[in-house]
Amino acid sequence: MLRSHTCGELRPENLGQSVVLSGWIQRIRDKGGMIWVDLRDRYGITQLLLEEGKTPKNVVQQVRNAGRECVVQAFGTVVERVSKNPNLATGEIEVRLENLELLNPAKLPPFLIEDETDGGDDLRMKYRYLDLRRDIVRKNLELRHSVARFTRQYLDGLNFIEVETPVLIKSTPEGARDFVVPSRMNPGEFYALPQSPQTFKQLLMVAGFDRYYQIVKCFRDEDLRADRQPEFTQIDCEMSFVEQEDVLSTFEGLIRNLFRNVKEIELPEIPRMTYADAMRKYGSDKPDIRFGMEFVELKGAEQDLTSGKDFAVFDGVALVAAINVPGAAGYTRKQVDELTEWVKRPQIGAKGLVYVRVNEDGTIKSSVDKFYSEESLRSWATACGAAAGDLILVLCGEPDKTRKQLSELRLEMGKRLGLRKPDDYKVLWVVDFPLLEYGEEEQRWFAMHHPFTSPKPEDIELLAAGDLGKIRANAYDLVINGVEVGGGSVRIYRKDLQKTMFTVLGFSEEEAQAQFGFLMNAFEYGAPPHAGIAFGFDRLCSLLGGVDSIRDFIAFPKNNSGRDVMIDSPAPIAEGQLKELGILVR
Amino acid sequence: MLRSHTCGELRPENLGQSVVLSGWIQRIRDKGGMIWVDLRDRYGITQLLLEEGKTPKNVVQQVRNAGRECVVQAFGTVVERVSKNPNLATGEIEVRLENLELLNPAKLPPFLIEDETDGGDDLRMKYRYLDLRRDIVRKNLELRHSVARFTRQYLDGLNFIEVETPVLIKSTPEGARDFVVPSRMNPGEFYALPQSPQTFKQLLMVAGFDRYYQIVKCFRDEDLRADRQPEFTQIDCEMSFVEQEDVLSTFEGLIRNLFRNVKEIELPEIPRMTYADAMRKYGSDKPDIRFGMEFVELKGAEQDLTSGKDFAVFDGVALVAAINVPGAAGYTRKQVDELTEWVKRPQIGAKGLVYVRVNEDGTIKSSVDKFYSEESLRSWATACGAAAGDLILVLCGEPDKTRKQLSELRLEMGKRLGLRKPDDYKVLWVVDFPLLEYGEEEQRWFAMHHPFTSPKPEDIELLAAGDLGKIRANAYDLVINGVEVGGGSVRIYRKDLQKTMFTVLGFSEEEAQAQFGFLMNAFEYGAPPHAGIAFGFDRLCSLLGGVDSIRDFIAFPKNNSGRDVMIDSPAPIAEGQLKELGILVR
Repeated sequence: MLRSHTCGELRPENLGQSVVLSGWIQRIRDKGGMIWVDLRDRYGITQLLLEEGKTPKNVVQQVRNAGRECVVQAFGTVVERVSKNPNLATGEIEVRLENLELLNPAKLPPFLIEDETDGGDDLRMKYRYLDLRRDIVRKNLELRHSVARFTRQYLDGLNFIEVETPVLIKSTPEGARDFVVPSRMNPGEFYALPQSPQTFKQLLMVAGFDRYYQIVKCFRDEDLRADRQPEFTQIDCEMSFVEQEDVLSTFEGLIRNLFRNVKEIELPEIPRMTYADAMRKYGSDKPDIRFGMEFVELKGAEQDLTSGKDFAVFDGVALVAAINVPGAAGYTRKQVDELTEWVKRPQIGAKGLVYVRVNEDGTIKSSVDKFYSEESLRSWATACGAAAGDLILVLCGEPDKTRKQLSELRLEMGKRLGLRKPDDYKVLWVVDFPLLEYGEEEQRWFAMHHPFTSPKPEDIELLAAGDLGKIRANAYDLVINGVEVGGGSVRIYRKDLQKTMFTVLGFSEEEAQAQFGFLMNAFEYGAPPHAGIAFGFDRLCSLLGGVDSIRDFIAFPKNNSGRDVMIDSPAPIAEGQLKELGILVR
Repeated sequence: MLRSHTCGELRPENLGQSVVLSGWIQRIRDKGGMIWVDLRDRYGITQLLLEEGKTPKNVVQQVRNAGRECVVQAFGTVVERVSKNPNLATGEIEVRLENLELLNPAKLPPFLIEDETDGGDDLRMKYRYLDLRRDIVRKNLELRHSVARFTRQYLDGLNFIEVETPVLIKSTPEGARDFVVPSRMNPGEFYALPQSPQTFKQLLMVAGFDRYYQIVKCFRDEDLRADRQPEFTQIDCEMSFVEQEDVLSTFEGLIRNLFRNVKEIELPEIPRMTYADAMRKYGSDKPDIRFGMEFVELKGAEQDLTSGKDFAVFDGVALVAAINVPGAAGYTRKQVDELTEWVKRPQIGAKGLVYVRVNEDGTIKSSVDKFYSEESLRSWATACGAAAGDLILVLCGEPDKTRKQLSELRLEMGKRLGLRKPDDYKVLWVVDFPLLEYGEEEQRWFAMHHPFTSPKPEDIELLAAGDLGKIRANAYDLVINGVEVGGGSVRIYRKDLQKTMFTVLGFSEEEAQAQFGFLMNAFEYGAPPHAGIAFGFDRLCSLLGGVDSIRDFIAFPKNNSGRDVMIDSPAPIAEGQLKELGILVR
């Protein structure tokens, strides 16, 4: 071992000991007679002390020649520090340097290896091995390791068994695009990389494995958004002989356990909200419930406070919905205009924005007071629970679109008012998702979760009746701070129902058999009732780390074009390799 | 939860309790008035009891209609068993059935779900989800889970951090064949699946991660032998600021820990053997040391007991080597002839076999006593340490080939004499491997381990001198019962030495830069000395399970053509998919 201690280990009780440290030179302060060196490793920083006249001359010279990020082995004695550093775990001591071995020199790094670095994204991605030296990046990966550790500990304790499912599987046209792998031994044929181990974990249930989990890489060849990676990690779980309630309570336990162990936060019981309520109150199936501003339908299924006042815009739509922004009555005309522009951007797509300002002095002011009496406006304010000092924002139009737009506006206002704090955690189960959604473009029904999700028993008759849009599924999502972190469902476990599902989804019997025959056949040999869930592990880590980007929690992420710029991949391969694989590049 | 207890849980202390069990019907014994049902789940078997006249009629009828492997929910009361079964954990009780819910019927399975099954390999692979129901197969995967758990526990305890490295990486022509993945977003370019995370773990060392591990899937597109899988799992590890000794002792600790926790075996200190000794004594770099029969060179570097007696066969070769097979003097002429045929098979390739039989009565008999006097033969026997009753088997020829042949013969004799017991574990470190080996066919040097392996410091001068075959590496293998279970090395961590290595291996500077530039560049920014090891996880599990085939320890293995016959993969993909990926099938 090239060290006796790590750079985070020495304390006053080590005073007087001869020690050997190894690490990277973080900083050298050369005050002439005295030189201090910060030596860094994964565990911390220890200060080395050189004193002209006392420290051997060649050692002083070596240090003066060494630069930042050189790797050295330092031999010395632990002494008490004159000016202690309470911010450093080793801040009470320093090591009087007696000898130094330069293990490897270092070129000047292309950016500062500090929490606040001067390196841009691209540069740090290219030199990811240097970026990973920064404290904050390393801590993200340490947190990731902790989350994995506590997850396994919790699930192992409940008799879950981790089973590795294959990575080289079979492509299925349903769902997102697969990455494929040409098979050299079976020319013209391809493996696919799994988007999830869904069918395999169900087969493990058929096999009697009862409680399965896996922390597993999955793959999706989608056009990447800022927060998507072509390869990502899931905590994938499945249980037999359970009902929805059992899955929710088991994994509520996991989440509470993780918060307790990783964040030292004792979460309250996780509330539940139906999909229908979430859409009605927040216009989103993953509402951020760190703040209120629930939707109020001024004109909708329950009431109509807007019609018949000659305001054609509201009269011509099915939904007029409002949010009450507390304490925002002080918004200037200019600020409201800017908000109006904001909702009219193509990303949001609203036609306009109506406001009602309930002033501090009790007066009321609105962009539509030409049409609506003060009494009308006060009835809106009452419906919204608006108090003096609040600002009501109103959107209208086709219900689904309007809710989406109002949801965006709500989130934006929450952000502007500082109501979305990363260290305030609000966790939520969203339940009773629709089983199917209609694709207008494709003119067919799609599984909202996936084709293996079970309808609620009480809704099964709607399947026969053809009332497909109303069928609710035994499907659930875990939402943290407005981010979908996990989702799952009770599965279909009978062949007849699974066949019906495939028919509803537009599969011919042959297609269903060709793609999922193995699963449907398995259901004929004694499949137990089962249900499961999967969590986005990268996302869960980034939430627990209080950081938006999942990339910061992946050791070697790819950029938005799916490239690893460090190793320069993907890359062309040799003609001979293509030939062996039986493929050509177009 | 569809059960109150598992099928392995009930004991006499539960007598009188109302319970709900869920599981599969393993067996029904219908004696008319009484019916017994074995109900099985992952945790065990519980006997259900039905009694005509006492059990509700419809329940009796349901059971009579149900077949093997039906999934049922059983409601009943725990009662004491009349004839207890000491072989069953639940053997003191049974459950008097009161009600039964048929959760899912089952077709008759295509083979018996028993330890001794009537299903052949192909059938069991196709219905793997049924094969996995068998106790012995499930136990293999449970053992695998335990090995992973104890491995993580041990390494976590030593401050190792598990870091996930990417699966979509870059193809490198050196080494085995890569699986590749066409990139849709970067047409004409390909990712490769990793054969190991070698370069990434080294970059993690450059990043200061210090102690890394990962239980990780790796991929190799090789022609499959019985015991190879295109995807396999490694325990991959790397450490910084260490020397070879530190790696050996750290992972000796892991192995001893696994044997202790998984097998309840306290291993002695793991002996070490140099590669040179292993080849000289056993003709193999992974000797099975459960038994002796070490090679004795009758004619070789040290002595010559065979020349000058007009036996042209021995006179014309560089090596005459023998093993002494204890107690085998009773081998008949026919048996020895059969052995001679065995070594002459093309798989072994020896030209012939010479024997010397030291009979129980002290006389000596040999196939070459025409040429050698009794005195000569006795000198051989002395050299071999042969006693009365032993049989000496002798091969000769070109040294490398002869050693390989004799190694095969030694293993065969060990097997025939029952000296290779699966529950007798002999673990060994083989050290000081050659750095390079010459490929006669390719007329160039290859890295024996991989191009990142460091030569022994005392042998580095041989590199400059061009005496390449003599350079030893700081490389080591862990061998258990003649099987290589792990291997690793101290790595090169300086750019100049790494460049030299690539030159020796025939890389042009451009090729080296294009393929491994990122690593060599990383070495310029302060790379610490580092070393590592990787264990074949599937193989380790199969050894600990006392079973030869790794397939039995993989949930969903592929067959020898790389096919998953259950899901029927690989398979052709749609033309549209190929088009999107920018490739054509030839």
